[in-house]
Amino acid sequence: MLVSALFTSLGINSGLCVFFFVLYSILRKQPRYYQVFLPRLLAQGNSKRRRHFNLERLIPSTSWVKRAWSISEDDLISSSGLDAAVFIRMITFCLKVFSLAGIIGLFVLLPANTAGNQLEEIDFTNLSNNSLDVFTISNVKIGSKSLWIHFSAVYIVTGFVCYLLYYEYKYISSKRIAYFCSSKPQPHQFTILVRSIPISVGNSISDSVESFFKEYYPSTYLSHVVVHRTSKLRNLIGDAKRLYKSLIHLQSDPTRLKDKHVGLFGRKADLADRHVRKLEDIEKNVRLEQSEVSLGREETRAAFVSFKSRYGAAIAFHLQQSINPTQWITEQAPEPHDVYWPFFSSSFMRKWISKLVVVVACSLLTVLFLIPVVVVQGLTNLTQLEMLFPFLKILVTIKFVRQVITGYLPNLILLLFLKTVPPIMRFLSSIQGYISHSEIEKSACNKVLWFTIWNIFFATLFSGSFFYQLSIILELKNIPAKLAVAVPAQASFFIAYVVTSGWTSAASEVVRVIPLIRSLVCTNDDLEVPSIPYYRDIPRILFFGLLGTTYFFLAPLILPFLLIYFCFAYTIFRNQFLNVYAPKYETAGKFWPIVHNSMIFSLVLMHAIAVGIFTLKKLSLASTLIFPLPVLTLLFNEYCRKRFLPIFVAYSAEVLIKKDREEQNDPAMVGFFEELITAYKDPALLPIQYSTYTDSLNTPLMSSAV
Amino acid sequence: MLVSALFTSLGINSGLCVFFFVLYSILRKQPRYYQVFLPRLLAQGNSKRRRHFNLERLIPSTSWVKRAWSISEDDLISSSGLDAAVFIRMITFCLKVFSLAGIIGLFVLLPANTAGNQLEEIDFTNLSNNSLDVFTISNVKIGSKSLWIHFSAVYIVTGFVCYLLYYEYKYISSKRIAYFCSSKPQPHQFTILVRSIPISVGNSISDSVESFFKEYYPSTYLSHVVVHRTSKLRNLIGDAKRLYKSLIHLQSDPTRLKDKHVGLFGRKADLADRHVRKLEDIEKNVRLEQSEVSLGREETRAAFVSFKSRYGAAIAFHLQQSINPTQWITEQAPEPHDVYWPFFSSSFMRKWISKLVVVVACSLLTVLFLIPVVVVQGLTNLTQLEMLFPFLKILVTIKFVRQVITGYLPNLILLLFLKTVPPIMRFLSSIQGYISHSEIEKSACNKVLWFTIWNIFFATLFSGSFFYQLSIILELKNIPAKLAVAVPAQASFFIAYVVTSGWTSAASEVVRVIPLIRSLVCTNDDLEVPSIPYYRDIPRILFFGLLGTTYFFLAPLILPFLLIYFCFAYTIFRNQFLNVYAPKYETAGKFWPIVHNSMIFSLVLMHAIAVGIFTLKKLSLASTLIFPLPVLTLLFNEYCRKRFLPIFVAYSAEVLIKKDREEQNDPAMVGFFEELITAYKDPALLPIQYSTYTDSLNTPLMSSAV
Repeated sequence: MLVSALFTSLGINSGLCVFFFVLYSILRKQPRYYQVFLPRLLAQGNSKRRRHFNLERLIPSTSWVKRAWSISEDDLISSSGLDAAVFIRMITFCLKVFSLAGIIGLFVLLPANTAGNQLEEIDFTNLSNNSLDVFTISNVKIGSKSLWIHFSAVYIVTGFVCYLLYYEYKYISSKRIAYFCSSKPQPHQFTILVRSIPISVGNSISDSVESFFKEYYPSTYLSHVVVHRTSKLRNLIGDAKRLYKSLIHLQSDPTRLKDKHVGLFGRKADLADRHVRKLEDIEKNVRLEQSEVSLGREETRAAFVSFKSRYGAAIAFHLQQSINPTQWITEQAPEPHDVYWPFFSSSFMRKWISKLVVVVACSLLTVLFLIPVVVVQGLTNLTQLEMLFPFLKILVTIKFVRQVITGYLPNLILLLFLKTVPPIMRFLSSIQGYISHSEIEKSACNKVLWFTIWNIFFATLFSGSFFYQLSIILELKNIPAKLAVAVPAQASFFIAYVVTSGWTSAASEVVRVIPLIRSLVCTNDDLEVPSIPYYRDIPRILFFGLLGTTYFFLAPLILPFLLIYFCFAYTIFRNQFLNVYAPKYETAGKFWPIVHNSMIFSLVLMHAIAVGIFTLKKLSLASTLIFPLPVLTLLFNEYCRKRFLPIFVAYSAEVLIKKDREEQNDPAMVGFFEELITAYKDPALLPIQYSTYTDSLNTPLMSSAV
Repeated sequence: MLVSALFTSLGINSGLCVFFFVLYSILRKQPRYYQVFLPRLLAQGNSKRRRHFNLERLIPSTSWVKRAWSISEDDLISSSGLDAAVFIRMITFCLKVFSLAGIIGLFVLLPANTAGNQLEEIDFTNLSNNSLDVFTISNVKIGSKSLWIHFSAVYIVTGFVCYLLYYEYKYISSKRIAYFCSSKPQPHQFTILVRSIPISVGNSISDSVESFFKEYYPSTYLSHVVVHRTSKLRNLIGDAKRLYKSLIHLQSDPTRLKDKHVGLFGRKADLADRHVRKLEDIEKNVRLEQSEVSLGREETRAAFVSFKSRYGAAIAFHLQQSINPTQWITEQAPEPHDVYWPFFSSSFMRKWISKLVVVVACSLLTVLFLIPVVVVQGLTNLTQLEMLFPFLKILVTIKFVRQVITGYLPNLILLLFLKTVPPIMRFLSSIQGYISHSEIEKSACNKVLWFTIWNIFFATLFSGSFFYQLSIILELKNIPAKLAVAVPAQASFFIAYVVTSGWTSAASEVVRVIPLIRSLVCTNDDLEVPSIPYYRDIPRILFFGLLGTTYFFLAPLILPFLLIYFCFAYTIFRNQFLNVYAPKYETAGKFWPIVHNSMIFSLVLMHAIAVGIFTLKKLSLASTLIFPLPVLTLLFNEYCRKRFLPIFVAYSAEVLIKKDREEQNDPAMVGFFEELITAYKDPALLPIQYSTYTDSLNTPLMSSAV
């Protein structure tokens, strides 16, 4: 790819970004779109819709940027939870890493690369006519001493990343503990989930649970809620909600109701009345089913067991309860609203099969996804494409078309395909047997991350140049050599990828394209405050981290684009946390280990590439001296696993006991325990709630914070 | 190898076995050898030395066999502990498996093999002239339908083994729990070992421990013993003991003392006096050092912490104690006399390096051990050997020499080399950082097992036929095909191995060759009751299990020899548990998971061989239909890991609480707790004990139980 093709892509995307930002700056001030851009503020009642028009509303402003920057981490934690803060720290972590890498890359490595002349003399008179490859390490002469600069850069950046990783892990661990220590008593801290409760003849599950825990935890056991099979009930409630919604529509639009049906049926058909009757029917059915379920007809062999202290719950969680280790299996309970209730409905066999299906489906998806990647890669190799489709020859003689095709189109297609992956992975995780939404999203996050690394990074490397050798990569010994050839060859593609996929995704995030389109197509008064899909955004950012880490010493030109991307992401996500996303659950930073592992993987991958490159460049001393780096990195990782990971799994006795003692004499605890008893009741067994935010929507709104 | 060569080996070994058994039957009745053959009975005082002579003592008898058979499992548990019973169950397990396999193999598979004629027509007139290969699956015609018999045999035996494995795991689990429930209160049940105790300025480790556990476990904490660095002290005590021993010798042999030195030095040199003075010196030093250590000069950052209940100890063991997961690390305490004290002396860094050294040493040993294996394999390929050493040509023309060389010598050499492995592995495990002898032996057991499988099984397979292709075995896909070629080719070697190594090792076990020789060379009055070296005997028996499992359908001729071996082992080890070995520690069956894993590995290996064989024999349907077997076997193993393994790691809350409640009001517990406080005191800090069994030895002995 020529520099000019990159410029085209850069031009298109910069234009798109500016357009999106301007659009956002204007639209967010229009009351019609508050629901899209400020749902969170609306729901909190902080932002009221302004009815009166003024000119200022049409002028794009950057006040939102300033506000997004000014918010402190503590404010962020208190408003959006520790998870949001961890998410932002992941971005600042990348910013820090790539600032240093950028300085080294642009001021030290780039001059060394361009001075190399291994490939061709650089054409300084017309920079845009140069191939991008002259800016990469491929241009450094074989055996050149200047490769020691790259060698040192690898060591320095690895050291810096490890230092930062340690520092961040430590910081987030302390934040996690501080968050726990400062938290109010919460149901999930006092509760465990018990599964595989043995069935004893004549006793209900509920009796079994009660007698077991009263026997062995007489001093700490508080109460329990047996989980019921409620899939039928949930379906009924879903029907009722749908019916209620259309009823509301009908009532709010009386003209439609009367006119249409008079004309159609010739009589004053009162559709609304029919709806009301039907709804009453369903509600009766729901109540009937609820009372049946409550009578213990549909008990599953699982129960939430609450204790009088956090320490008591922790003991029951950590110890094996029964002589038979497959009975009375305990795990930490999720937050009550985080519980994924459908999970409990399926039988053991179904769960087991689901797990197998998920494994198969994931592999299948990975294999099938290679097809679009190969097609996309075909586009960057225009000569191949021309051979396949001769009619293209005329088209691609036009310079601009050529540049669009090589610089922009492949990434766009890839981007569209990639958009479908996170929801699919989330779905797959949801049938895998996790008991909470947070666990499902964590698992999906991992799936999406490894899918992206495999299907974008590796498949791009080994399809553009030698896709058929993919199977040969399984020979572990040859990986560095093959990476050394393939990775620099795809530098231009990934630079374009950062600009296209990165910048555009950041810009489209702020405009919220899909909700915006939806709000334009149909007016839906039901305000929904979304939560950030971590399983979509964390893998994306980490993938850019991987690109930066692996490419910084090969093609330092990628770094400025990455830095711009991370700046965008920083600003935009802080803004979205303020205005759009409300936390759905709180894992207190449990996503961080994923970030850590991904960075360690990136580092080791980078080392493998470095070994290959130095071997290829006939600097065998350097490639030998790289070897201690991956070993040290993995030892460092092992230390971190021992030092920090347990903190993210469970809280220590020290912390739990301290926290329990603090509240021992708090009179508010009596009320809390009363609430705790019913906290884990299946929402399907409660009276139907039709809408959460209806009240705040029906009142006239006035803007205050835009 | 011809059948006649096997007969030669069989003849030599049968002769040896008969000789050993007769020798044992006679020698065990001679009072002079009670120390070798009945040390346990002697130490218990059950067997007294008969002074008066009678003829019966010189007639070999089989009464000991009858006695060994008649002892019940419960008696064995009460006299030698659960570990011994589990060891015997391992042998009976193999007996059961190979009885069924033997019936199938000899009456169904063997006729099918000999009827095959793929290799050559069998010579029924002179059986001993046939090659052993005609009795193996190699002789079945390619594509023959009779291979379905082998196929069914694989399925039947796999099913039978899995059923037995499940049954045994369940049985031993229940025995383990029953053993715990019926046990008297023991110090290690109430104690945990705490490591990485943080150092706080101004406080000793002891103070830290006390304040930490008094703070967080006020109701259950009982006491603690900080571990001291006592390597210097242990050396001094060792010196003292050696000196004491030679002093005793001098005193018991006054003639030597006087005569010799009068002649030599010309004066009545009282060596004994000098010894006594030296001993007193050392003892003074020991007391000095002990008092210094007791003053806390050499505290390590580890302590044994005892609790008032088993449940309290379990909670402290299972929960992460400190905010920093690398501090206050807890683990279950071993029995007081099982603690491996030298471990605590080494520093953290030394331990870390030791671990690395152990890994390197194990790999090195494995690689170096291939050399004797290759040499041994050379002996079975006489033609190769003749080419290398032409002078052998004349020698091997003598039929008997030829048969000895191919049938007996290779195994004998291998056997001698193998004898050195268990002690080496035990030593390596001891510097790896385990805190107890039982853990060290368990780890050594695993090491020896995998070493044996790798260095005897795989190295034999791929050196005799194609040693240089060893590296190619790393290609996982080709393993079945290569095994299918190599495994049947080595059938005759392994049949001879069972006879040589198995039978002889069993027979030499009963005669206790080395202690017998030692007792002949020097008369040592210090009675030592040995404990059974599980790390030597379990891998040996399991390796024969592996041979049987992998060869039963290939070369069923191996089975009768194996069955005879297991019968020997059963009789002999029961006899040795009665008369020789006293338990040194009690893991309550923790060795069983090793047995289970080894059998699962054998099964999957057998399946891989079956796949290869059926492919080789062009019965592709059969090789496809084998595939579900390893999958099902591994799923079965996974289930067992979930169902039974946790029982072997820790006891459940249910069991612990029940046991604690039983003893709540037992007045004897007060005394137990008083003892518990000092139970984990380093023996180096106690007054020197010179001999354990001296008293029982010095009294005149009379036989009662021979």
